[in-house]
Amino acid sequence: MSLLVQKFGGTSVGSIERIEVIADKLAGFRDKGHELVIVVSAMSGETNRLIGLARELQEQPSAREMDVLVSTGEQVTTALLCMALHKRGYAAKSYNGAQVRILTDSAHSKARIKEIDDKAIHADLKAGNIVVVAGFQGVDENGNITTLGRGGSDTTAVALAAALKADECQIYTDVDGVYTTDPRVVDGAKRLDRITFEEMLEMASLGSKVLQIRAVEFAGKYKVPLRVLSSFTEGPGTLITLEENAKMEAPVVSGIAFNRDEAKLTVIGIPDTPGVAAHILGPISEANIEVDVIVQNVADDKTTDLTFTVHRDDMLKAEKILLSLAKELGVREVRTNDKIAKVSVVGVGMRSHAGIAAKMFSALADLSINIQLITTSEIKISVVVEEKFLELAVRGLHSAFGLDEAK
Amino acid sequence: MSLLVQKFGGTSVGSIERIEVIADKLAGFRDKGHELVIVVSAMSGETNRLIGLARELQEQPSAREMDVLVSTGEQVTTALLCMALHKRGYAAKSYNGAQVRILTDSAHSKARIKEIDDKAIHADLKAGNIVVVAGFQGVDENGNITTLGRGGSDTTAVALAAALKADECQIYTDVDGVYTTDPRVVDGAKRLDRITFEEMLEMASLGSKVLQIRAVEFAGKYKVPLRVLSSFTEGPGTLITLEENAKMEAPVVSGIAFNRDEAKLTVIGIPDTPGVAAHILGPISEANIEVDVIVQNVADDKTTDLTFTVHRDDMLKAEKILLSLAKELGVREVRTNDKIAKVSVVGVGMRSHAGIAAKMFSALADLSINIQLITTSEIKISVVVEEKFLELAVRGLHSAFGLDEAK
Repeated sequence: MSLLVQKFGGTSVGSIERIEVIADKLAGFRDKGHELVIVVSAMSGETNRLIGLARELQEQPSAREMDVLVSTGEQVTTALLCMALHKRGYAAKSYNGAQVRILTDSAHSKARIKEIDDKAIHADLKAGNIVVVAGFQGVDENGNITTLGRGGSDTTAVALAAALKADECQIYTDVDGVYTTDPRVVDGAKRLDRITFEEMLEMASLGSKVLQIRAVEFAGKYKVPLRVLSSFTEGPGTLITLEENAKMEAPVVSGIAFNRDEAKLTVIGIPDTPGVAAHILGPISEANIEVDVIVQNVADDKTTDLTFTVHRDDMLKAEKILLSLAKELGVREVRTNDKIAKVSVVGVGMRSHAGIAAKMFSALADLSINIQLITTSEIKISVVVEEKFLELAVRGLHSAFGLDEAK
Repeated sequence: MSLLVQKFGGTSVGSIERIEVIADKLAGFRDKGHELVIVVSAMSGETNRLIGLARELQEQPSAREMDVLVSTGEQVTTALLCMALHKRGYAAKSYNGAQVRILTDSAHSKARIKEIDDKAIHADLKAGNIVVVAGFQGVDENGNITTLGRGGSDTTAVALAAALKADECQIYTDVDGVYTTDPRVVDGAKRLDRITFEEMLEMASLGSKVLQIRAVEFAGKYKVPLRVLSSFTEGPGTLITLEENAKMEAPVVSGIAFNRDEAKLTVIGIPDTPGVAAHILGPISEANIEVDVIVQNVADDKTTDLTFTVHRDDMLKAEKILLSLAKELGVREVRTNDKIAKVSVVGVGMRSHAGIAAKMFSALADLSINIQLITTSEIKISVVVEEKFLELAVRGLHSAFGLDEAK
């Protein structure tokens, strides 16, 4: 008998029929004697419907009132799921963020959880209830409704699991776990039984968007065992843990991540003086453009080239800023390219194994794929290549690192 | 400069366009220097949509979870109205029932207000905000969301006006005030400038459904000046006050109310022994059937007849109960009739004026309308007539009591 915190997203509770399916699932867990705290999102489409109403009124509605508005979506789901459980003869009780009380700071629409009161939920569990909590929301010290931002229901689940000292936090999604790479690109992609928090962070931020990064960070920080499973099929999913895979023959590389949302900007012929990178990237960040890869090459003695990547949607905006700086800084040229893709190998194992980079580059060379940029971290090596080579590169690397062998 | 509590119902806030219209209206009041506390209902259709979702799951969903579910409707409106006010440059802040805190008992779906905390709202008003409160909802001592039942937003408004010591509580509806009778029946029906709480109660309970009875009782009890106005047209509406109309030539009769929702049941030949009425009406009330008019006639020395009216939907149920009692009590016959209508003249003035009843009965006699039942109270005389005479009776009485003269 375990205390489980389980999170179901908007698709899993997107209709009355789906809510009935989830209720059946929960009844099964309860019958096995588990104590259940269920975190739910708004029914799919509902949050967008509410945002649509607000946008009819204002381009930029008050963040406080947006939170009041959209937080109703999750509250509706909690009530409906409780009814579905009652119908099956199970005691269940709903909570919104204020009722739990999930205390946050006052940063509306992107609030951070400060404290969770676990008394009422523990009492309800003891009384035999399945507790159903509205995800994504909290309340500040003055009683204002706050939200954690989109996808914040994952964070609610992890934070509740930490506060309640749950045995496991289970995130139900539309995939049955974390894969070595995207199965739509590589047929032989395998579900991982386990993955470390660090690897998961790299996989998530690089485009295998199974979990919200913030929830993974949170789970790592509070040592909450986190599991990703499918709402729709049975299976053990993928466990995200602190420990590396203990097996001797543990693979060095856990997976191949990729991302084709980025565009590349290169500033050529920058006078090579101190502070010039800050001069260029400062205005970009002030314009709220997130920069991913940054590489600086010295082209000759007096000038340097700076290349960085941003989200494709931001490329034109970034280019405009660079052009306005160009004259002031005396640069030769600004080049942009949105036909690129980033491919990464991720693995905690590579910390203790030399030669991963060499193996990666030679695998790409064998496929005649030209590498445009390289960046590395302790557990990840990323390259930027022409977009048309993306699938070829992912498949080649997946195979080169032995990921698509029979399990 | 006054402190006004204004309530807008579901139709008035039924779309973004309508919310914009209300926001313009409020901006106008604010410009005149009034302090505003606005109570809103759910957008029309929303409560029914939510109830529909619940009914897909369960016939009789948990009352607690129904309150969690439907209370979201009003919360959505508060946020949208605040956004519309912000757009116009007015400071505004939303509150749900728990945030105010409107403390109620724990009777989910029909909770009664126990206490309202006025501190936060007063502080917000002082800071220049228009305060927008979700109607129809509160919170019990344990933090559970409660609702006051359908139409409860009127009660929220009156209770807030009482707690805040507002100068006036204004209920905006789709009619521009209380009329001497239903304008759809009598062309010459006139809007009343003022009416007493008692008259309003009689008018409301008799079918001129402008305001929730409970809200009127509440307003009378706490001496809150209440005004009914139209959301869509300009005008002073009708003020509901404690004082009778002070003018010398005040009309004796304020209005003609009517109701065609009732059915009549007559039990004939009841042995005339003490307690027999209780014997008959006890089981009716235990079956949750509300009885309106009750009249008992002595038919001969040993038996009596008892007639009463119930809602038409309850007639067959009531008849079944009476038939099951008939044998036990030894009554001769049970008759039912659902082709009846009740017509009433209402007026505080009739307390001090004799002859109102005589005038009423002779007006009906002039029209050859047979009176089936008569009941009287201090400020009301009601008769039950054949349904087909309803319009004729209402028009005749409206004219006989001088209500359709030019103002």
